[in-house]
Amino acid sequence: MYKIELSSDDVPKKWYNINPDLPGELPPPMNSEGKNQIESLPQIFSKGVLEQEFAQERYITIPKKVRDLYMRMGRPSPLFRAKALEELLNTPAKIYYKREDMSPTGSHKLNSAIPQAYYAQKDGVERLTTETGAGQWGTALSLACSQMDIDCTVYMVKVSFDQKPFRKAIMEIYGGELYPSPSAHTEFGKKVLAETPDHPGSLGIAISEAIEDALANENVYYSLGSVLNHVMLHQTVIGQEVKTQLEIAEEEPDMLIGCVGGGSNFAGFSYPFIKDKLDGNSDCKFIAVEPSTCPTLTKGSYDYDFGDTEGLTPLLKMFSLGHDFVAPSVHAGGLRYHGMSPQISLLTKEGYIEPRSVHQNEVFKAGITFAKSEGVVPAPESTHAIKAVIDEAKKCKETGEEKTIVFNLSGHGLLDLTGYDKYIHNDLEVDGK
Amino acid sequence: MYKIELSSDDVPKKWYNINPDLPGELPPPMNSEGKNQIESLPQIFSKGVLEQEFAQERYITIPKKVRDLYMRMGRPSPLFRAKALEELLNTPAKIYYKREDMSPTGSHKLNSAIPQAYYAQKDGVERLTTETGAGQWGTALSLACSQMDIDCTVYMVKVSFDQKPFRKAIMEIYGGELYPSPSAHTEFGKKVLAETPDHPGSLGIAISEAIEDALANENVYYSLGSVLNHVMLHQTVIGQEVKTQLEIAEEEPDMLIGCVGGGSNFAGFSYPFIKDKLDGNSDCKFIAVEPSTCPTLTKGSYDYDFGDTEGLTPLLKMFSLGHDFVAPSVHAGGLRYHGMSPQISLLTKEGYIEPRSVHQNEVFKAGITFAKSEGVVPAPESTHAIKAVIDEAKKCKETGEEKTIVFNLSGHGLLDLTGYDKYIHNDLEVDGK
Repeated sequence: MYKIELSSDDVPKKWYNINPDLPGELPPPMNSEGKNQIESLPQIFSKGVLEQEFAQERYITIPKKVRDLYMRMGRPSPLFRAKALEELLNTPAKIYYKREDMSPTGSHKLNSAIPQAYYAQKDGVERLTTETGAGQWGTALSLACSQMDIDCTVYMVKVSFDQKPFRKAIMEIYGGELYPSPSAHTEFGKKVLAETPDHPGSLGIAISEAIEDALANENVYYSLGSVLNHVMLHQTVIGQEVKTQLEIAEEEPDMLIGCVGGGSNFAGFSYPFIKDKLDGNSDCKFIAVEPSTCPTLTKGSYDYDFGDTEGLTPLLKMFSLGHDFVAPSVHAGGLRYHGMSPQISLLTKEGYIEPRSVHQNEVFKAGITFAKSEGVVPAPESTHAIKAVIDEAKKCKETGEEKTIVFNLSGHGLLDLTGYDKYIHNDLEVDGK
Repeated sequence: MYKIELSSDDVPKKWYNINPDLPGELPPPMNSEGKNQIESLPQIFSKGVLEQEFAQERYITIPKKVRDLYMRMGRPSPLFRAKALEELLNTPAKIYYKREDMSPTGSHKLNSAIPQAYYAQKDGVERLTTETGAGQWGTALSLACSQMDIDCTVYMVKVSFDQKPFRKAIMEIYGGELYPSPSAHTEFGKKVLAETPDHPGSLGIAISEAIEDALANENVYYSLGSVLNHVMLHQTVIGQEVKTQLEIAEEEPDMLIGCVGGGSNFAGFSYPFIKDKLDGNSDCKFIAVEPSTCPTLTKGSYDYDFGDTEGLTPLLKMFSLGHDFVAPSVHAGGLRYHGMSPQISLLTKEGYIEPRSVHQNEVFKAGITFAKSEGVVPAPESTHAIKAVIDEAKKCKETGEEKTIVFNLSGHGLLDLTGYDKYIHNDLEVDGK
């Protein structure tokens, strides 16, 4: 059995919210002196997502319309056995991967874009603003907004915008409006450009621009593609489906591996399994893989910091490299974020998640190995997970252990081929290795 | 039910060969005076595919290794109900589409690339040469060759090569070697370039180059992505799966719609249903949609012609615009071929297939309508089918008929976004409308 398919009816009926199960209390968001940011949240977020952000219910019912759209867009996604990769590595390990790349926008991001657009429309909002790194989130939100008949404005980190000429086209096909960030479209963007005209941009800056745009205009909300709890819980449809699929395959996972930027694909994939560990019912290992050039979990400090560069968001207790951190121009644009989901940060601090960092050259090598064997060209972000999977499978070869390794193929790389092209032609930017 | 999934076990065990069921005898391939080309076929084709080319058995067993690779690469592909499109059009018609875009290389082409690479490897061949228009075939053959551990050289029509900068990258990821055609890599390419240095290329020229490369080198075979019977029959896994899926959905199709270039996705999708019509057991309509700029079936003549520009292939009795025809630089590179599968040509001549031509602007409009409603960005080729589907669904709205329309989404357009980009920005090349 190479793929484990579920039927439309198997799309989960509830999202899983990890808040009530966390090991210890989650430090609350804080205001910075003189700037009462938490009070400004209702001005930029829909009621639906704000309720979910601080919810303590373990399970939250997925609205009928959202679940219906999940189905229309192809959920559940299949789980594949990576037989060809196993044979190539000659490993006794069994490798499975969840196919979030099979979403029409090519990544897991639609899982949160749909409900966010749904709740915004419910509040009568006319437009959503957002940031995007790699472009996966901006693409997904553009489609979701088109489905809900609201407008969408995307601020895309400039270096990614330049690396990925066709991201603009696909967002425009879905009706999205796109600005490279820093842009002249906001006061903060103008300020950054005045100081550094050729600034490569960062997710933190793009978030500041998107929030400013939302605050400055009537009937416009802001939408975030990662980091916050409501995003994480929307993504738990992934892990819930994987649980059902592994039961069908009669497998007990030994480790779950995912890449991390702000944390949303990792959380959505792993939380339903981490719950079992928190309940004392599992020995599964959880490995979060990040780029060595943006080592939030492995080298950041666990402290209060802003989610954006300008300081418009509340202070969040999280691993962070500092809100003014500008990551080098590596190609995994979705992983170039200075901070990390507060819940993932806490779970890492408490030892439930093992962070790991990898270098850009070795991840592209892993991506090509995967593409040639399994056929799918993974997103540069997802290759970080694949590099760790290959390392673990090789360890199994040495020890002879028949471990079950499951990873989340968070997206495909068909719109992000510049990095592969440079790697093949030995033209990749150096990142320390 | 929005998607009808089959399990790995449901991958067909046999290919369907339409030869014995054709209405009347198929005119055989002919030699041109002084050029006994049929005798040269064994020099460039594997034994396996040559046998299939002229086979009279109705069903041909799919080799175990090929069927296994079909499964590994995700077959069977799902059949989707286009509910959102139906609602948008407010039509009583029921629209279904086969998801060949979900193949790892993004199109149906892998269905023939895998067996062609398999039979070549079986004959001890070290390298396959081929042509590619849009790039879908070259991508699929690059992956299939990588799976069989043989090399792959692709001659890509120059205008498509220029329109699609990332096609090169993806073929190289899979290990393929790519030349824009006409190229300086072959004598014929050099000749064309000497006469017309800025020649945009054509599939006919690219085929000539690929055949010359195969003839000139030891242990090198040539591989064709469409037109010939063995390619058509490999593709019948599509239609056989659709039959099973429509039975599950309890649907009897009123019409099947597909785009046509050389004919392979259309044949693979429709032949198992055309068989029923040939047997007198079906009233289904079959609509083959081509670009108005390359109107092979609608304006070509049914006569003997070469499959390539130089005249290296045997003469085939088919609809053709002439082997020196150079189609305008429209973006559906996969449909810019002067000829057509001899079997499809005969079936069209005999009235079993209804040909139709559509304009480039209207197909991109249809493609965007589909992308915004169903989520998937279709390949420029597939949008031709979608334009006809929308037309038929609108007719149903007028007449109130609840017809069941099924079409083949032969591929996605994520590597072919230049045309969409130009359409959105009103920069599309004029094609007569």
